[in-house]
This record gives sequence, C-alpha cells and structure tokens, in this order.
Amino acid sequence: MKLYDFPGAPNPRRLRIFMAEKGIKVPLEQLEILKGAGRTPEFLKKNPFGGIPLLELDDGSYLAESVAICRYLEGLHPEPNLMGKDFREQALIEMWQRRAELSLFGSIGRAFQNTNPIIAPVIGQQFPEYGAKQLATAQQTLAVFDAQLKGKEFIAGPRYTIADITALVAIEFGKQNAGLQLDPALKEIARWHQAVSSRPSAKA
Amino acid sequence: MKLYDFPGAPNPRRLRIFMAEKGIKVPLEQLEILKGAGRTPEFLKKNPFGGIPLLELDDGSYLAESVAICRYLEGLHPEPNLMGKDFREQALIEMWQRRAELSLFGSIGRAFQNTNPIIAPVIGQQFPEYGAKQLATAQQTLAVFDAQLKGKEFIAGPRYTIADITALVAIEFGKQNAGLQLDPALKEIARWHQAVSSRPSAKA
Repeated sequence: MKLYDFPGAPNPRRLRIFMAEKGIKVPLEQLEILKGAGRTPEFLKKNPFGGIPLLELDDGSYLAESVAICRYLEGLHPEPNLMGKDFREQALIEMWQRRAELSLFGSIGRAFQNTNPIIAPVIGQQFPEYGAKQLATAQQTLAVFDAQLKGKEFIAGPRYTIADITALVAIEFGKQNAGLQLDPALKEIARWHQAVSSRPSAKA
Repeated sequence: MKLYDFPGAPNPRRLRIFMAEKGIKVPLEQLEILKGAGRTPEFLKKNPFGGIPLLELDDGSYLAESVAICRYLEGLHPEPNLMGKDFREQALIEMWQRRAELSLFGSIGRAFQNTNPIIAPVIGQQFPEYGAKQLATAQQTLAVFDAQLKGKEFIAGPRYTIADITALVAIEFGKQNAGLQLDPALKEIARWHQAVSSRPSAKA
C-alpha cells in the first residue's frame, strides 16, 4: 500500500492520526497540491475527482476519500476500534463524525478556501464575506460541541473515536489557516482539546 | 421508531428512498423547517445541531445525520444491501457515496442556499455569486461522474447502493431548486438517471 499525502492539508492529517492511533505504517508519497499536483492528468487517472488522501492498494487499485480509507483500515486493523464495534455503535460514531465534519470541518474549510490567499491559485475566485460567515458558523458550532461535551470524555462518548480526529484536525487547521479562535469560555472544548492534542497521535 | 421528515428537503428524501428500497416503514412526523421548526429550543433538545432527518428510537434516544441513520437501518435490515457486505465493499461504496455527497450534493446545496429566496429566511445573508460558482462546480462534477459511469451500471459498481441515492436526490433537488440542468451530451448520466429515477423507491 502507499498513501498520497501532503503535510499541511487537513484530510491527509485525519488519516495520519487514525493510522498512528492504530500503529499502522504505510509509505507516504508527498503530493504538492498547492502547486496543482492533485489536478494533473496523471493524478486524475488515479483519482478522477482529484485531491488527497488517496490510498494505492497492492492490487494497483485506488481508494479515495479520507473516511472511506479509514473504514478500510479499520477492517484490516480492528483494534483499537475507532469507528464502532457493531452497527449501533457505528451509527452513533458516524453521527458524531458527520457533525464534526459537516458543521465544523466543512465551515472551516470554506472559510479557508474563501479567505486565505495561499489557496487562491488552486481554487480561483474567492468570496471573503462568505468565508467570514463560514468562520462565524464554525465558532457557533464550537459552542454547541462545548455543551455536548458536558459529562462526556470524548465527542462520541467514553472513548476516543474518529469523531475526535475530525474535530481536532478541523480546529488545528482553522487556527493555523482560517483565523479560528478557541474561546476560553468554552471550558469543555478546552478540556477535550488539551486531552486529544496531547495524545502521541496528534503529532502525526 | 419515528422519523422527523419534510417533503421538500433533500436529506430526509435520501432516507425515504433508502427505506423504500429495503421495505422499511417508519412513522413520519413532518417538521416545517422552512418556518424554522428545525431550530426551535424544543427541537434542539432532540437534535442540538438542528436539522432533519432525525430518528427517534424506541428507547427515547435520537439518531441524527442521514447516512448515520442509514447505517443503523442497514444493520437492522441488512437486505437488500445498500452500504456494503464486508469492510472492503463498505469502504468502496463509502468512497462513492462521499464523492456524490461532497462533490455533487454539497455544491448543489450551497448553490440552493445562496441563490434560492425560499431559504433566505432560514439561512440569513445569501451570496449569489458564490452560489453560481457552486452550481458551475456541480455541473462539472456531473461530467466526471459521466466518465466514471462508462461500463458500470450504477455509481459504485454493478448494483444499486446508497451512492446512487445521494446522487439522484442531489440532481433532482438541484433541478427543482438550484437551476441545475442535465446536459444531454452526458449520455451515461442520462442512462443512469433514467434507470434510478424509474425505480419505485424514487417516488418516496
């Protein structure tokens, strides 16, 4: 197997943390996506929708989409479990992973895409006012997560899951690239963020 | 069980089609989301992130997020299988479902949210130019799907899956609410669309 990766991009980082939690090591190939390497004709043969992460399997086929790659790796390496042990738990964790992805990660990504000049050459026209509104949405969503974390150690419940990975990566990426700030009044977020960002996997 | 639903909204429709394919019947409660019923304090106790579909379970707990609800129902009613029989197939179908959701459904949703006056009272400020760019992205994505459908009966391969549901609902919603047009030159899309939209489940 081989994983197409780029250090500064959030989706590949989700996967690197997921693999670090499971102790999975896969050779990485860096792809200069800010120079358009995710959209070349050669790369589009591997992933017609563009983008990374992309996993090259040993049979020469490719698996795209971070969460789909996580589900494949979870099947190959079931422990520690990060996506649910039975369908009830899988559904619950997927609910929280999607909340983190759609409400937080998505808003932060759109704030970045529409306000940060580093991505302008790849994305074309930016809409800074729209980006600012997306950032405000992300800040509001953090307050919802804060309330939801009361009495829970992690986002989906008593143990660390893929939902924590998505939320952590979204927040770190937003702080570095989209002007996101963690309001210190959100004490549950602060407690959770301290815990998940000090795990060894957070260095991945 | 009870499902909170609204006839015109795309996410609940994904679930209604999914249930129709499996022959699952669940009582529906309509929620007037265009009048803000998905954001009332009472409803936010059920789903703190707002929005539908929302499944009320028999133990009084709630499951949100369309795809998470689908995964739960797939566990309860495994046949016909729509999300994969083993982890390899689950990962492949999840890749295609996410491509349909993130590249097509998401772009169409943002085009709708930023151009259609019907949603303005719920969403606040709209950014019509951004919405137009999102619609253009969706049209380009349809061409990528067209190329990918060559030699395949359905989006994820030889059988109908949740990826077809997401793409169908996105396209129908986009045509009705966001100015999406199916280019007749996309012959594979036309063939696939004819097949999936004539299934009995498409009436759900």
